[in-house]
Amino acid sequence: MKSTSSYHPQAPYVLGVDVGGTKLATVLATRTGQILHKVRLPTEADKGPQFGVARLISMLNRNMAETGVTPDEVIGIGVACGSPMDTARGIILGPPNLQSWNPVPIVARLEAEFGLYAQLENDANAGALAEWLFGAGKGMHNVVYMTMGTGIGGGLILDGRLYRGANGNAGEVGHMRVVLQGGPLCGCGKRGCLEAFCSGPSIARRTRKALRQSPNSAILERAGHVDQVTAEHLFAAARQGDALALHLVDETARYMGVGLANIIQVLNPEVIVLGTIATEQGGFFLDRVRRVVRAESWPQISEVVQILPSPLGEQVGDYGAISVILQNVAREADSDRPL
Amino acid sequence: MKSTSSYHPQAPYVLGVDVGGTKLATVLATRTGQILHKVRLPTEADKGPQFGVARLISMLNRNMAETGVTPDEVIGIGVACGSPMDTARGIILGPPNLQSWNPVPIVARLEAEFGLYAQLENDANAGALAEWLFGAGKGMHNVVYMTMGTGIGGGLILDGRLYRGANGNAGEVGHMRVVLQGGPLCGCGKRGCLEAFCSGPSIARRTRKALRQSPNSAILERAGHVDQVTAEHLFAAARQGDALALHLVDETARYMGVGLANIIQVLNPEVIVLGTIATEQGGFFLDRVRRVVRAESWPQISEVVQILPSPLGEQVGDYGAISVILQNVAREADSDRPL
Repeated sequence: MKSTSSYHPQAPYVLGVDVGGTKLATVLATRTGQILHKVRLPTEADKGPQFGVARLISMLNRNMAETGVTPDEVIGIGVACGSPMDTARGIILGPPNLQSWNPVPIVARLEAEFGLYAQLENDANAGALAEWLFGAGKGMHNVVYMTMGTGIGGGLILDGRLYRGANGNAGEVGHMRVVLQGGPLCGCGKRGCLEAFCSGPSIARRTRKALRQSPNSAILERAGHVDQVTAEHLFAAARQGDALALHLVDETARYMGVGLANIIQVLNPEVIVLGTIATEQGGFFLDRVRRVVRAESWPQISEVVQILPSPLGEQVGDYGAISVILQNVAREADSDRPL
Repeated sequence: MKSTSSYHPQAPYVLGVDVGGTKLATVLATRTGQILHKVRLPTEADKGPQFGVARLISMLNRNMAETGVTPDEVIGIGVACGSPMDTARGIILGPPNLQSWNPVPIVARLEAEFGLYAQLENDANAGALAEWLFGAGKGMHNVVYMTMGTGIGGGLILDGRLYRGANGNAGEVGHMRVVLQGGPLCGCGKRGCLEAFCSGPSIARRTRKALRQSPNSAILERAGHVDQVTAEHLFAAARQGDALALHLVDETARYMGVGLANIIQVLNPEVIVLGTIATEQGGFFLDRVRRVVRAESWPQISEVVQILPSPLGEQVGDYGAISVILQNVAREADSDRPL
């Protein structure tokens, strides 16, 4: 923990900033995680990072002004954003959906503006912290968090703290290979990654490919045209009992289940929290994944792991941002305990 | 850390016990890991655990008597053995090669006998600790250790401490699935595990299968008969340039490389230390594995990870046993540092 005069570990409030490609959000919350005030505005990425950072500063000022909170009542400011980034120096390095923000020394800008300690973390790690402090991983020591949206990202809480790895790239669970050779090309440049089978766009692509061979499916009725097919159309048709859709959902669950089984064989966690598609589809999808995981991992490992949808859902961004700061509070409280 | 009067954290020596199916070894070492005295005797598993434990006690007495060291000069006794076990209670629960030792409360027996703190750990975790404290992972924070012998076991040092997972089963890297469906049956009951392709017996089985289809190979000349073929025959023939042998070595490196790439994509370690076959075969095999890992993982992850043979080799058992105790000494020294 950085020790500066601007870090107020005993203060009652915390600020959080969620920087996305299309929207910016800032929240003010209590130190126990109750969100009291939120501001949300479009990023307007085309206007550049100067505009965006100025907008964030005014949003944070609104968070405080409209609740009557002053900076000296705030522990610090947590910032979550997509990778790549330099977390040690607090610099955003042009994530895929916000490429003009490169470099943006967001931590230095916020610390200078508010005189408050700030910390930057990638959004997958922030999500893992959020699920551990406030979501499905609450009270547990070993939590794997996985998003299942445009991409498959992940974050790891191991032995009660965020695990970043040698240079901050731990938790890239979406880029494990689930087939030995070949497989579809992934956005990352590799082939056969879990993400190349199970992200939203990958599910849609696999569905479109299948429909071109077997167009007689309720999926097409929902989507109208094969080019319009999304993962949502697939799941809706599967719930209706459409045979092709059910086959594709089972196949998706197989890829996910094998990927999760490999993770739990190595990490033996208490919980895997799945966000986005897995949260939206709930038991209809997760029960299929759970069956594969049980068949593909040792009983003594699979019997202690829960596979749960994210209870935070779309709020994971807000909770993630504040958790970047609150993880330190949790850890300090922990180290105060007698051994 | 258990706090008993029999634990001597400042003492100059440490004792280690390595319990194997065919041999027992006990060592006395300095607290910095210099092994001063070793006793090695057959386990004689058929004589049962009472005999074996009595033998261990007499071996430990010899370690001390022949060096003139007394129990109050010993930090504690580290014990390494195969799983399953109850590490918290210090009980051996009949590992595959020592099934009659079930249950053996080895920690209670040694503590009662010597009045010294004792701690039990599975041999893969002990090996990881040994490589971290004394081998290829020295000075690093994130170390993956993998054996590649009769089975493929593993242990993880993450953020500078042994990571055990929710119930002590973390690090079972040999039982990740490397093919999506099917694959050879593994000793663990699953199919398609890394171990089912790359353990010594699995390599031999794959080689024998290939030889039945293409018997015109230098492998057969070395082994004499297809039923006698071992992994060593395969590697020796490959070094000679035999085409089938080279193909099988490349295939083995592909399985290992994909498995390692998946591990580093999730854990982003500084080093993977490979024991047994990988140590024996050195660069001839490891360079092939390294090429696969580089092709199958992100540059920012693969460029920070070294893939190294175990420098401890057959001594990993001795170093592992003392490391079970010395990990605590290392951690206490670490926590004495100002934050």
